Amino acid sequence: MAYPRKLRMGLVGGAGGFIGQVHRMAAALDGEIELVCGAFSSSPEKSRAAGQALYLPPERVYASYREMLAREQARTDGMDFVAIVTPNYLHAEIAMAALRAGFHVLCEKPMTTDLAAAEQMARAVAETGRHFCLMHNYSGYPMVKEARERIRSGAIGDIRKVLVEYPQGWLAGDFASAGVKHQSWKLDPELSGGSCCLGDIGTHAFHLTEYVTGLRVTELCADLSAFVDYKPLEDDANLLLHFENGARGILYASQVSINDENSLSFRIYGSKGGLEWHQEEPNTLIAKWPDRPRETVRTGSGNAYLGKTALGATRIPAGHPEGFVEAFANIYLEFARAVREHAAGKTSAAYDFPSVADGLREVAFIKAAWDSQRSRTEKWLPFPA
Amino acid sequence: MAYPRKLRMGLVGGAGGFIGQVHRMAAALDGEIELVCGAFSSSPEKSRAAGQALYLPPERVYASYREMLAREQARTDGMDFVAIVTPNYLHAEIAMAALRAGFHVLCEKPMTTDLAAAEQMARAVAETGRHFCLMHNYSGYPMVKEARERIRSGAIGDIRKVLVEYPQGWLAGDFASAGVKHQSWKLDPELSGGSCCLGDIGTHAFHLTEYVTGLRVTELCADLSAFVDYKPLEDDANLLLHFENGARGILYASQVSINDENSLSFRIYGSKGGLEWHQEEPNTLIAKWPDRPRETVRTGSGNAYLGKTALGATRIPAGHPEGFVEAFANIYLEFARAVREHAAGKTSAAYDFPSVADGLREVAFIKAAWDSQRSRTEKWLPFPA
Amino acid sequence: MAYPRKLRMGLVGGAGGFIGQVHRMAAALDGEIELVCGAFSSSPEKSRAAGQALYLPPERVYASYREMLAREQARTDGMDFVAIVTPNYLHAEIAMAALRAGFHVLCEKPMTTDLAAAEQMARAVAETGRHFCLMHNYSGYPMVKEARERIRSGAIGDIRKVLVEYPQGWLAGDFASAGVKHQSWKLDPELSGGSCCLGDIGTHAFHLTEYVTGLRVTELCADLSAFVDYKPLEDDANLLLHFENGARGILYASQVSINDENSLSFRIYGSKGGLEWHQEEPNTLIAKWPDRPRETVRTGSGNAYLGKTALGATRIPAGHPEGFVEAFANIYLEFARAVREHAAGKTSAAYDFPSVADGLREVAFIKAAWDSQRSRTEKWLPFPA
Amino acid sequence: MAYPRKLRMGLVGGAGGFIGQVHRMAAALDGEIELVCGAFSSSPEKSRAAGQALYLPPERVYASYREMLAREQARTDGMDFVAIVTPNYLHAEIAMAALRAGFHVLCEKPMTTDLAAAEQMARAVAETGRHFCLMHNYSGYPMVKEARERIRSGAIGDIRKVLVEYPQGWLAGDFASAGVKHQSWKLDPELSGGSCCLGDIGTHAFHLTEYVTGLRVTELCADLSAFVDYKPLEDDANLLLHFENGARGILYASQVSINDENSLSFRIYGSKGGLEWHQEEPNTLIAKWPDRPRETVRTGSGNAYLGKTALGATRIPAGHPEGFVEAFANIYLEFARAVREHAAGKTSAAYDFPSVADGLREVAFIKAAWDSQRSRTEKWLPFPA
Repeated sequence: MAYPRKLRMGLVGGAGGFIGQVHRMAAALDGEIELVCGAFSSSPEKSRAAGQALYLPPERVYASYREMLAREQARTDGMDFVAIVTPNYLHAEIAMAALRAGFHVLCEKPMTTDLAAAEQMARAVAETGRHFCLMHNYSGYPMVKEARERIRSGAIGDIRKVLVEYPQGWLAGDFASAGVKHQSWKLDPELSGGSCCLGDIGTHAFHLTEYVTGLRVTELCADLSAFVDYKPLEDDANLLLHFENGARGILYASQVSINDENSLSFRIYGSKGGLEWHQEEPNTLIAKWPDRPRETVRTGSGNAYLGKTALGATRIPAGHPEGFVEAFANIYLEFARAVREHAAGKTSAAYDFPSVADGLREVAFIKAAWDSQRSRTEKWLPFPA
Repeated sequence: MAYPRKLRMGLVGGAGGFIGQVHRMAAALDGEIELVCGAFSSSPEKSRAAGQALYLPPERVYASYREMLAREQARTDGMDFVAIVTPNYLHAEIAMAALRAGFHVLCEKPMTTDLAAAEQMARAVAETGRHFCLMHNYSGYPMVKEARERIRSGAIGDIRKVLVEYPQGWLAGDFASAGVKHQSWKLDPELSGGSCCLGDIGTHAFHLTEYVTGLRVTELCADLSAFVDYKPLEDDANLLLHFENGARGILYASQVSINDENSLSFRIYGSKGGLEWHQEEPNTLIAKWPDRPRETVRTGSGNAYLGKTALGATRIPAGHPEGFVEAFANIYLEFARAVREHAAGKTSAAYDFPSVADGLREVAFIKAAWDSQRSRTEKWLPFPA
Repeated sequence: MAYPRKLRMGLVGGAGGFIGQVHRMAAALDGEIELVCGAFSSSPEKSRAAGQALYLPPERVYASYREMLAREQARTDGMDFVAIVTPNYLHAEIAMAALRAGFHVLCEKPMTTDLAAAEQMARAVAETGRHFCLMHNYSGYPMVKEARERIRSGAIGDIRKVLVEYPQGWLAGDFASAGVKHQSWKLDPELSGGSCCLGDIGTHAFHLTEYVTGLRVTELCADLSAFVDYKPLEDDANLLLHFENGARGILYASQVSINDENSLSFRIYGSKGGLEWHQEEPNTLIAKWPDRPRETVRTGSGNAYLGKTALGATRIPAGHPEGFVEAFANIYLEFARAVREHAAGKTSAAYDFPSVADGLREVAFIKAAWDSQRSRTEKWLPFPA
Repeated sequence: MAYPRKLRMGLVGGAGGFIGQVHRMAAALDGEIELVCGAFSSSPEKSRAAGQALYLPPERVYASYREMLAREQARTDGMDFVAIVTPNYLHAEIAMAALRAGFHVLCEKPMTTDLAAAEQMARAVAETGRHFCLMHNYSGYPMVKEARERIRSGAIGDIRKVLVEYPQGWLAGDFASAGVKHQSWKLDPELSGGSCCLGDIGTHAFHLTEYVTGLRVTELCADLSAFVDYKPLEDDANLLLHFENGARGILYASQVSINDENSLSFRIYGSKGGLEWHQEEPNTLIAKWPDRPRETVRTGSGNAYLGKTALGATRIPAGHPEGFVEAFANIYLEFARAVREHAAGKTSAAYDFPSVADGLREVAFIKAAWDSQRSRTEKWLPFPA
């Protein structure tokens, strides 16, 4: 490891919402990273209050991310990287400023809401040579990695069919009473970049699909709907997918699936077997075979039958549930490894965290879904025909 | 009831496959119907052997359905109705002959493989005034009826989203070793009417969707595939659906979903709640609410919270699993009621079994899916766009 | 087979309760048996009404079992066997009369409520040479048979630990409103033979335990309770068990486990593996291994990995749920095989249905549990000691 | 809060095994505590290596706990409390030394292996006025707290029946290959205090039982076994329990239940309802009612129907799985609250973490179970009697 010390993290955003807290917990979990500074809110008072609650020294709680970048650059013990957990429309500007100030960046998804901005970010990463990690935390789960490794090794043969779902129900109920006001920018067509459901959760499903299968989507056909009062933003999305190898798929994301919490799942069928995973029971992977019983593959440090990647991503023995924060922390750990190697002048061929290229792809995905919705209006066959 | 005796059933087909046995078990279960005669196979010897194994008197085991219709018409104790369990392409011819010979008809699904024949059948039913029941057995499950009744009563509000799935895996494995040779007509493009997966199981999913929601599909967009060696017959089908009230849906049927057995399920979301049901655990219906815990609604004769229809379709107390045959038998029971009422000169406004109109609709559905596949080829948006 | 005809069944009891209907459905299911006569109630009118509803000819609906035995003996087309579904305290008397009249007997459990009567029944069976089958229907499930066969073959090694549970909740609620009045004899200390929970369901759990493991219980220690208003009858029973091979066990039966329906289950652990089964999801058997994922073993006629016994006890393909009635019918089928072989002068070494010896053992079990409760009062260690 | 800074933790033990890592993760999770020093092993080199891996300054990595106590006492920025994660037989000595040196103590369970030592610890806590927290982490789960609160409020009426299970399978397989050598003291009769299964996991089950029900066990009857090669230490324990209010219970703990991971669960039945929870799916609590469907109660910060205690113990929205570490961290958080209040001269009536009195009770429980095993040998009734 490059430094005999914890890595130093600065945080932009995180005073409201729950995702900032998740980042702090995930970064702290493994003792590799310490939060040293932050610009926690666009309101200086809120930022100050947040920093105090986190026991940060007042001089490292900043009124703006620009101030933070400038001041931390000047310190000998300044931060090593910036984590960005602001509303989506601010990601690009902050990330590019941080990269150009010499910091590595870890950024919440979706990377941005605009394809041109996404391309600029990709160029900024290339030009600065800094690491950029996009927080698709679901790819941090051990059983997701196990599925990926099995598919890579050919265990289920050629992939034929992929079903990815991400139903939630929180938008179906009464908005105010659900206490989700802090997310109101998600429902502002301007700030959200013209997409709600796809940007918020569809991108997770899309990234997970390509991550696990190792296959790229080559064509899609979308049916987007707005059932509740946030039109024109879609709150439900049904997509048919074609993959590069000829596989077929369905991707479904929804925010109006009442009582569904955060039910991301995949089912993947190949010529030799199948795999199924549900985020709400993340420590189980179901393996399906044509001629023998299905298996309940379980994560846990003692399960010697697991692949190396999954074993490396689990902390405790089977039956001691690892959850959302642990998966999140796996992304942080791999990012920290990259940052330490960078400081030591090394670079690995490939780090196992989502990259700026993944981010570019997800922004294109949102755009393509809306383009399909708008330009392929003749796809519907009246029935009875 | 019209007769102080069991109803008399004649069977056409059923010497091979398992579905004939299911019909016999379902008809026998409740003591309302007795099998009195049959033409069990197109092979007279096979028919004879089958009749003997069923302890039927030799004189009522026939070499052909035509012989059966003629001889039973002539008896004073002749059969009351004909059940047809032959390969699909024979349904129309036999059903129309039986109706015209004065018999009521209960027919396996899909009703036929050709739209013109389906329309002829509908006319034959109308002209003869006989009862025609199409065996969509899944609508016989108590919890399916409970879901339908709840939706009718407005319990989940306006329906917004419908997910219906019917994955099976039996075609993915080796055909010969799976011992499914008797089903080989299903894989013959000529005999199957140009559809495999949709005709075999997609029609069940389609009928179930319209039965439970009470909504008609008005538009569809299909993506059909043939992964195994029975081209051009599809073994996998993904469809986007639009319903008459604006609801959106996905219908997915597959015969290459390895290790999935017979995993028909629905998830329906409305503005006030949701309902979920899985055929492989048929005695449970999951009710979802926006602001309170989801409920595990269970069938069983003692569960006083159930609606009248579900209670009428369950035979034993909760926790004593009722299965596939019992649901099947519920369709038989309702059909028997109609036949008895017909004999008594009565007719109910509506019987709760699938009709010839449902059958017509399912044949149109298969055709529409293939038309969408062939004629809406521009629906795909290349990605990245 | 001995006769080229269906076997003829006479039924004693069954006008009230649900178990008579289950016997009729199970007997009818496979087309091997027909109900030809009955004495359905101790009330002649009720018996007559029941017979009429079953479309039996009036001359074969009897006012008493004695009349039935005498008249059927005299007919050339008389019944082949008697099924007894009366309250428990009547089983012994009817069964012995039927055996002595030359009929085979199929009897509901528990065989009787009194050890001396049970021994008389065993002698009557031996003396008459007729078949006697005790309806422990849960041993008819395919996955129970699969578990037994696996254990016999040594698949899970030496058995160490056995957990058998049978919680129900129906007695916890309000008795009258639960519509269980017809079962009131179960709550009469005189008629029930001094046991409620053990006699009604504990015996099922006990029989299942010995059937599946192939091991005999050699010692027990019981804690019986009466929580609701039917004292002194127990409605809850917790037992520690010792088996002949040194294995340890827990058997738990309860009628006050609110909302539990009919949750019979077993978990068996050996030196090499384990097996788990739940009656409410009867088509699944979970296989546990020390070093690889647990397996979901599923019944169904196409699952070639199943043992011969399980395959022989399943009727339809996997994923088409077989339930309570089908398991019940498996006992009837095996009994019918024995009866046919008897008529043909043959006898098999062992039939796979519960015998009079099993019945004797279950009556002894009830007695032992109560003896432990009464005579081993010093077993409790005060705590803190 | 008393200090405007993180609390400072010193750790004793934790170089081997996984539990030390869990303590570090749990303490770090919420940003309230920082690890400042440690004596990580009885081997000074191992301690040093562990401290280095944790980025601690060399001067705060100690060769023994005595050195740590002395040096930290002398620092102005010394630790605030000691967490003890050594083998069980060392707990008492270290805890008492730490208390007497003025530190608060958080100690792994079981508190100790000897009743006299446990009583000394209780006295030391009383005399020093320091906080002592016993790490029964399972009581930290939100749904465990929800169950407790519901029971306290009378939601399920008077408790009648309690089933608590804790099956594991790790001892059933080959010891060496399971990579559990670091736990070898658990299998040393001397070091383990004469109990393996009860001390290791039975105490968790016992504490959970009394914590959730609010009822004390007053009598027990135990059946302890040693199936694998670590005799005389028990690896399996079946206990019948009587509670102070007349409720009955079963407590079952095992380390030879092959393939069971860490399957702690409870099922509690009262006169009005029931509650069921499984540690391996910790975010769900099942609520059972006599006359309506069972409910799936879920943790998550947005579930407004939850009680205050559960809501206070959950960090993120429903569907984002919180796991073992989060529950563990809840105990740390409450302990930290107590330590901060102590520094501010305050004390709450009751903190919601396990106390020295709970620890005393659990040591007595182990002793009572073994006393029952040895002194109540006449409890067994031979069968057939």
